[in-house]
Amino acid sequence: MELIEKANQEALSRMLAAEPVLVDVVPASVAIPALKDRMILHAGPPVAWDRMCGPMQGAIAGIAVFEGWASDLEDAASKAAAGEFDFHPNHHFDAVGPMTGMTTISQPLMVVENRTYNNRAYCAVNEGLGKVMRFGGNDAEVLARLAWLRDDFGPAVGKALRSGDGIPLKHLIARGLTMGDEMHQRNVACSGLLLRELAPALARTSDDRETLATALAFIGGNDQFFLNVAMAMGKAIMDPVRNITGSSIVTAMSRNGTDFGIRVSGTGDTWFTAPVEMPKGLYFPGFTEADANPDMGDSTIVETIGLGGFAMGASPAVAGFVGAGTASDAGNFTRAMAEITAGENPEWTIPAMDYQGVPTGIDIRLVLETGLAPTINTGIAHKQPGIGQVGAGVVRAPMKCFEKALIAFAESLGVK
Amino acid sequence: MELIEKANQEALSRMLAAEPVLVDVVPASVAIPALKDRMILHAGPPVAWDRMCGPMQGAIAGIAVFEGWASDLEDAASKAAAGEFDFHPNHHFDAVGPMTGMTTISQPLMVVENRTYNNRAYCAVNEGLGKVMRFGGNDAEVLARLAWLRDDFGPAVGKALRSGDGIPLKHLIARGLTMGDEMHQRNVACSGLLLRELAPALARTSDDRETLATALAFIGGNDQFFLNVAMAMGKAIMDPVRNITGSSIVTAMSRNGTDFGIRVSGTGDTWFTAPVEMPKGLYFPGFTEADANPDMGDSTIVETIGLGGFAMGASPAVAGFVGAGTASDAGNFTRAMAEITAGENPEWTIPAMDYQGVPTGIDIRLVLETGLAPTINTGIAHKQPGIGQVGAGVVRAPMKCFEKALIAFAESLGVK
Repeated sequence: MELIEKANQEALSRMLAAEPVLVDVVPASVAIPALKDRMILHAGPPVAWDRMCGPMQGAIAGIAVFEGWASDLEDAASKAAAGEFDFHPNHHFDAVGPMTGMTTISQPLMVVENRTYNNRAYCAVNEGLGKVMRFGGNDAEVLARLAWLRDDFGPAVGKALRSGDGIPLKHLIARGLTMGDEMHQRNVACSGLLLRELAPALARTSDDRETLATALAFIGGNDQFFLNVAMAMGKAIMDPVRNITGSSIVTAMSRNGTDFGIRVSGTGDTWFTAPVEMPKGLYFPGFTEADANPDMGDSTIVETIGLGGFAMGASPAVAGFVGAGTASDAGNFTRAMAEITAGENPEWTIPAMDYQGVPTGIDIRLVLETGLAPTINTGIAHKQPGIGQVGAGVVRAPMKCFEKALIAFAESLGVK
Repeated sequence: MELIEKANQEALSRMLAAEPVLVDVVPASVAIPALKDRMILHAGPPVAWDRMCGPMQGAIAGIAVFEGWASDLEDAASKAAAGEFDFHPNHHFDAVGPMTGMTTISQPLMVVENRTYNNRAYCAVNEGLGKVMRFGGNDAEVLARLAWLRDDFGPAVGKALRSGDGIPLKHLIARGLTMGDEMHQRNVACSGLLLRELAPALARTSDDRETLATALAFIGGNDQFFLNVAMAMGKAIMDPVRNITGSSIVTAMSRNGTDFGIRVSGTGDTWFTAPVEMPKGLYFPGFTEADANPDMGDSTIVETIGLGGFAMGASPAVAGFVGAGTASDAGNFTRAMAEITAGENPEWTIPAMDYQGVPTGIDIRLVLETGLAPTINTGIAHKQPGIGQVGAGVVRAPMKCFEKALIAFAESLGVK
C-alpha cells in the first residue's frame, strides 16, 4: 500500500509540476511524422470501421473527401469498409481530438509543450458549434471551413505564436476558473483570455488584413474555441504521468462513441474498455434523446486533470446548460469528485467554494471503493452521420472500465 | 403612497427598458459642445478648488498641463487657485468619470447611446491601473498615455465602432455576470467580451498595423478597461429616469473625494450631499489606510443600476480583492441590497444565486427604513497628488445624503 501511495504522490506531483504552453500551430504531418497518407486518427480507444458509430463513420467519410482520398462520401465509406484507410487512436500519437476527433495529415494542429518534461501534445482547431466535423458533419460547408482553417487560419495563428515565447496556460486556466469556465462545456472566459494574448501578436505578424479580421472574428465568435487548447494541454500534462510502477492514477479517459477506455499509470498503455453510456442532458430545439449518439471524444482528458465535470463548482452556469440541476448544486459535483481523487490542485481554485482546489488525479481504487464514477460534461452528437451537435449533458465513465483496470493493476503488483 | 409606488414602478421600468449601445469614441469637444476651453469637469457633486482633495487637485494640475493651459504642475495649481479654470461636475454634462473623473475638451470620450430613449452619455477611456490620472497621477508618463489615447487609440476605436452598428451592452453585461464580473472592481470578463466584438472591426478599419497591435494589447492588458464603458452605460440608463414626480428612486450616486452626493428622481437635479466616508479595504504592498484618500468618483453609477457592490454575489473573487470577507459570503451583500431596491433585473442574473436578478432601483425610503446604506466596491487613491491607486475596498454611501433627500422628497409631495 505504501508503494501505491508513493507512486500516486509521484503521479500527482508530476501533474502539478507541469508547465503547459501553447507554442505553435503546424500541419499534422509536421507535428506527427508517423502520420502518413490514408491514416486517420480518431477519438477513443481502438475501434474497427464496422463497430464505429454513425457520426464517427460520417466524419471519416468527410475527412477522406477533404484529404482527396475519395471522390464523395459514398466512395469514402466504401473505401473505409474495404480497409483502404488505416485507423488509429489519437492517443497513440501524442494527440487528442474532440468528439469524433479526426486527425489527418493536412489538418493544422495546435501544439502544447509541457516545459517541465519537454513533451508536446497536439489537437486540431475547434471548428465552432453546430454542424461541424467533430459532431459528424461532413457537407461542403464543413469541408470549406476545414480548408480555411488549413490554408489561412492555422498558418496565421502559428506565425503569431512563433513570434513570441508561446502562451502559458496554467495561469490562464486559473483565471478561467474564477470566471465560470470548467473548460469542457464552458470555455467562454478562456477563449476571451486567449484572444487577449493572441490578438496583438496576430496583428503584428499578419500581412493580410482580411485574414486577420476573419481570424479575430472566428476566435471571438466561438465560445468553445479554447476547448481544443485545454485538451492538448490535458494530454501534455498527463503523458509524463504514464508508466509509474504502482500508481493507480488514471492517465487517460477517452471514448470512440462505441467504447469508453481508460488508461492507468501503473499499467502503462493498456486500454480498459466498456460500452459507452448515454449522456443525460438537455437537447437543442427539435432534438431528443432518441436522436442522440452515446458518449464520444477524447475531450475527457480535461476531467482527467481535474477540469470539466470535476470543476463544476466553478461553473454554475454550465450546470444549467448540461442539465445537471440547479446552479447552486454545482459544487456538489466537485465535492463528489474530491472523493475519488488523490488531491487538490492548489493553483486551480474555485472562488465560490472558498478557493478549494479542483479535485486532481483519479484513483481507480477510490472509484471502486466509493462507487462514484467520474462525472463528465459533454456535448451530444446526432447518431446519424452528417447532422452535428444536438445537445449537451453529463455522463459517467462506465464502472466496468475501472473494474477491469483494478484487476490488471493488482496483477501488475503481483496480486492475484 | 400609491403615487410613489406607481412612480417607482415607472422608474424601474425605464431602467429595465433601456437599450444601451457603445457607438463611438469622439473628442469631448464634439461629444459635449458646451465644454469649452479651460473648463474642467470632475467627478461628484460640485466642489470648489480649495475644498478639493489631494488627488483631485493633482489630476486638475495634470490635465491643465496636458491641455496646454499651464506650463507645469505648479503653474497649473496657482492658476486653479486663482480661478482661471471653470469647474463643473461631469454629471451636469451627460458625462461620468472614474475617481477624479477629469473631462476636458481634447480627451476622447466613449459614447453610449440608450436607443430606447435616444439619449447619449459619455466617459473617458480607462487608462489602466497604477499611476494614472483618475487616481491623481500627473507625471510625464501619465500625460504621454493620455496623448496616445487622444491621438491614436481614441480615433482608431471610434472608427471601428462607426464601421458597424455599435456594440449592444445589455447582453454583454448579462454574460459578464455569469463570468464573475460585478463591473466595478472586476471587469476582466466584460473587457474580454468587448475585445471579442471590437477586434475584428479594429482590424478591418485600421490602416496602421502598429497602432492596431498596440490598441489590441492595451485593451487586452487592462482588466478594468470595461469599467468606463459600464459607467457611460449607467449614466445612459439612469438619465431618462430623472424627474419622475413622486419617485423615490436614486438616479445618481457620486463622490468628489470631499462630498458624496445623490440625486433622486422625484426631486430632479438637486444634489443631497454629506462628507464622504473612508473605504474599508485591502491595500497594495507598501500602503496603509493612513495613505488613503476618502471615497471618490462617478463610478458609483454602476451601483445605481444594480451592479458593483449590489452584484457582489456574482463575483466571489472580488469579495477577496476588496476585503469584503470570504468568497462564499459574497451573496450576502447582494441579498442585503435587495432590501433597499424596488425590484430585480430579470435580464442581469447571478448563476450562483440560482439566477436571482441583481437588485435594481435604490429607494431612499427603504434605505432609511432598513438602515442599510448602499454598498459600493471602489478603488482607493493615495491622498497625495501624483501617486495613484493604493488599494481597493468597500464603502457605504453616507446615510445623511438619504436623510436630506427624504426631507426634500417629502416636501416635493407637499408633506412637511
